[in-house]
Amino acid sequence: MDSKHIKYFENLIGKDNAKFDKAHQIAYCYDATKKRYEPDGVLFPRDENDVSEILKYCNENKIIIVPRGAGSGFTGGALASGGGVVLSFEKHMNKILEIDMQNMVAVVQPGVINMDLQKAALEVGLFYPPDPASENYSSIGGNVSENAGGMRAAKYGITKDYVMALRAVLPNGEIIRAGKKTIKDVAGYNIAGILIASEGSLAVITEITLKLIAKPKFKKTAMGVFPSVNSAMNAVYKTMAAGVTPVAMEFLDSLSIKAVEQKFNKGLPVDSGAILISDVDGPNLDVINEDLEIIKNCFTQNGAIDFKVAKDDQESADIWFARRNCSQAITMYGSLKLNEDITVPRSKLPELLDKISQISAKYNVTTPCFGHTGDGNVHTNVMVDKSDPQAIERGHRAITEIFKATIELGGTLSGEHGIGISKAPFMHLAFSDGEMELFRSIKKAFDPNNILNPFKMGL
Amino acid sequence: MDSKHIKYFENLIGKDNAKFDKAHQIAYCYDATKKRYEPDGVLFPRDENDVSEILKYCNENKIIIVPRGAGSGFTGGALASGGGVVLSFEKHMNKILEIDMQNMVAVVQPGVINMDLQKAALEVGLFYPPDPASENYSSIGGNVSENAGGMRAAKYGITKDYVMALRAVLPNGEIIRAGKKTIKDVAGYNIAGILIASEGSLAVITEITLKLIAKPKFKKTAMGVFPSVNSAMNAVYKTMAAGVTPVAMEFLDSLSIKAVEQKFNKGLPVDSGAILISDVDGPNLDVINEDLEIIKNCFTQNGAIDFKVAKDDQESADIWFARRNCSQAITMYGSLKLNEDITVPRSKLPELLDKISQISAKYNVTTPCFGHTGDGNVHTNVMVDKSDPQAIERGHRAITEIFKATIELGGTLSGEHGIGISKAPFMHLAFSDGEMELFRSIKKAFDPNNILNPFKMGL
Repeated sequence: MDSKHIKYFENLIGKDNAKFDKAHQIAYCYDATKKRYEPDGVLFPRDENDVSEILKYCNENKIIIVPRGAGSGFTGGALASGGGVVLSFEKHMNKILEIDMQNMVAVVQPGVINMDLQKAALEVGLFYPPDPASENYSSIGGNVSENAGGMRAAKYGITKDYVMALRAVLPNGEIIRAGKKTIKDVAGYNIAGILIASEGSLAVITEITLKLIAKPKFKKTAMGVFPSVNSAMNAVYKTMAAGVTPVAMEFLDSLSIKAVEQKFNKGLPVDSGAILISDVDGPNLDVINEDLEIIKNCFTQNGAIDFKVAKDDQESADIWFARRNCSQAITMYGSLKLNEDITVPRSKLPELLDKISQISAKYNVTTPCFGHTGDGNVHTNVMVDKSDPQAIERGHRAITEIFKATIELGGTLSGEHGIGISKAPFMHLAFSDGEMELFRSIKKAFDPNNILNPFKMGL
Repeated sequence: MDSKHIKYFENLIGKDNAKFDKAHQIAYCYDATKKRYEPDGVLFPRDENDVSEILKYCNENKIIIVPRGAGSGFTGGALASGGGVVLSFEKHMNKILEIDMQNMVAVVQPGVINMDLQKAALEVGLFYPPDPASENYSSIGGNVSENAGGMRAAKYGITKDYVMALRAVLPNGEIIRAGKKTIKDVAGYNIAGILIASEGSLAVITEITLKLIAKPKFKKTAMGVFPSVNSAMNAVYKTMAAGVTPVAMEFLDSLSIKAVEQKFNKGLPVDSGAILISDVDGPNLDVINEDLEIIKNCFTQNGAIDFKVAKDDQESADIWFARRNCSQAITMYGSLKLNEDITVPRSKLPELLDKISQISAKYNVTTPCFGHTGDGNVHTNVMVDKSDPQAIERGHRAITEIFKATIELGGTLSGEHGIGISKAPFMHLAFSDGEMELFRSIKKAFDPNNILNPFKMGL
């Protein structure tokens, strides 16, 4: 990078906050995709005005800006794949500004860690539901930019359902506010709505106002064991159509079960075809027990061979252990994990899982599946040996076919991980030329010089 | 309108569906604002392809298109204030296409009446919560375009919380799909999110996929009587911050109470300062009774002088009668109603109502208030004599000050009615020049020739 740019940034925010050395280039070059793109430098803005000045300068000088939360994304949204400077909020813009109990609202800066917000809310009896698997280290700014989901989405929805208002900076340095601390607001276009999940490509989010809800009073965990994936998938959508809305309805297929058991030896039913894990919460135990009765009946009617309800927190934690550790355990099937998070309407889950099984057989790859079936979201992991280029090629062809099958079933390429660079090559499967053209027009309306996280989302 | 355009439309969709006579110009010139703008003609597309062909032609020939639902809007969103042709969905594109019980989803055309969808859902044990006061005649297309709210928003949210996917036609005739029949979908920009509440200015919505939920099992109605508006407003936000989420928490001030009583003689507490009406629903009666106990305590602690719970449906209907009829009853205070639907964070309600009272006194106008205080949304009605131009002028100045006070309290110009033409002059109070510029850039990205409902929202 031109030394005059480096000098400008150092003068603007101080040498401590403008880093162009190799150590920082390396420290900010990766994310959970394990791809590496070294940025020219890393900037740590102290406040919104810094962000505004940085963007104005970068816009005038056509310098690419890549906003970055915790770098825990699965699709490369925070990678400087086209060079430029990374804008990181983890050093300064990481404060919970307000927990407003009267209006049940939190106001946070983008660098706040998801779990820190969850804890701060719980301390005053409130609840922030979105809980991506990365909750202990991912940032709210990243969660909003990718519209993160989590285990509780079946009942409580995803990040977008909690964003009431945003402050953000446009590439020209203009500070905008979108939305209010109110449930209703229909004045002007829904800018907050389009910034969510825009992967930092339209504006840089500097403040986030989030809805909090009352903490649910009681919770129980249940587990059903099924002879086949198909029977479990039927049980999922039929249970929810019966009027129960569990907090979570999570799924492990037999490959995932076997992997967890082999690694951790927890006494899981390794001969079964699938397990479903469900949390139910409610305002009193009668409500929960009624729901559990419906779940038990629906599971049994769809072939469950075992059903148990955890007696206490320890048993609940034991049940959840399998689900929480399967991502790690399935690495036994291959040194390279091509993981996707396709999502279909719940009633299409049986068909989707059938297709995945057929496609895996066709391409001779092992594909353990688990995930958030309560909202139709399946983590599909094509496992291959990273030293075997032919296997990798077969894996990629399998994934292309899985994406096609997903779209045909009315589903989406991504339920919660985003598109970034990893899924960009598949955007044409899901969107028409006219739709992609519309995305590009919107990008241009916000960012005419294309400085903000360009080349993401297939744009 | 040039006869060659009329011929084109007649050839395209048939003479029965392309009407340019005076009768149709009059029939489609009004909405609930009582303002009148005669369009050049009215088109009744038979399907999405008709919409596409009409838009393509209008775009090429720079003919303004005004999409129209039932014409029940309060802000002129469906008025042809700049001329052009009205596009009406009430004749053909008015079908419920699917109630998908397995995925708890409805797919409808824009002309479907809100209540018809509510009924169709209830018939299969499902529930579509958004219930604007116009539910018996307003259309889902209009509800989505204005992001309609309603009585149940305090617990169940508003139209945007139920839109899962849209089909729409861009001004160039391109048919686009946005969203999926899935809870999660993070692929591409959130086009559905920005089309909601865009007042038909970005694209013409041709199909709407809506989330349905399980029908709540039990419901009870309670009423609290307060010595003052201030005590009632404190009770509202403190009750909800105590962890209860009532379906509705509706408010009538003393002017509204007196008006209803004078007109209908229902034995309402005319000497009180305000009443609150609250519906509570839940999965069993214990849950409801617990919530009612909390409400009773919060009401009493904030000065309620009476509290009663309806014993049956009849008593519940009697309580709701006052709320449902106050809009009509307050016309006793003036032949012209300048009605607004400002919204503030709930904790700011006491201050907002104080300000409204002071401003009304300053301008010597009578301003009965009622509305959806559970979500901070107050229907503020400045009542003046329509034959008194000075009173009207004072009324408009009062409203300008009320808007300013609302914005200062962190509120919004509109909770659910939209901006249209009525509130367009006030957009500069709520949005900066840079924000308005962004709105215009977005409008241009969708509609470069500005043919789609132009001149609305202050754009």
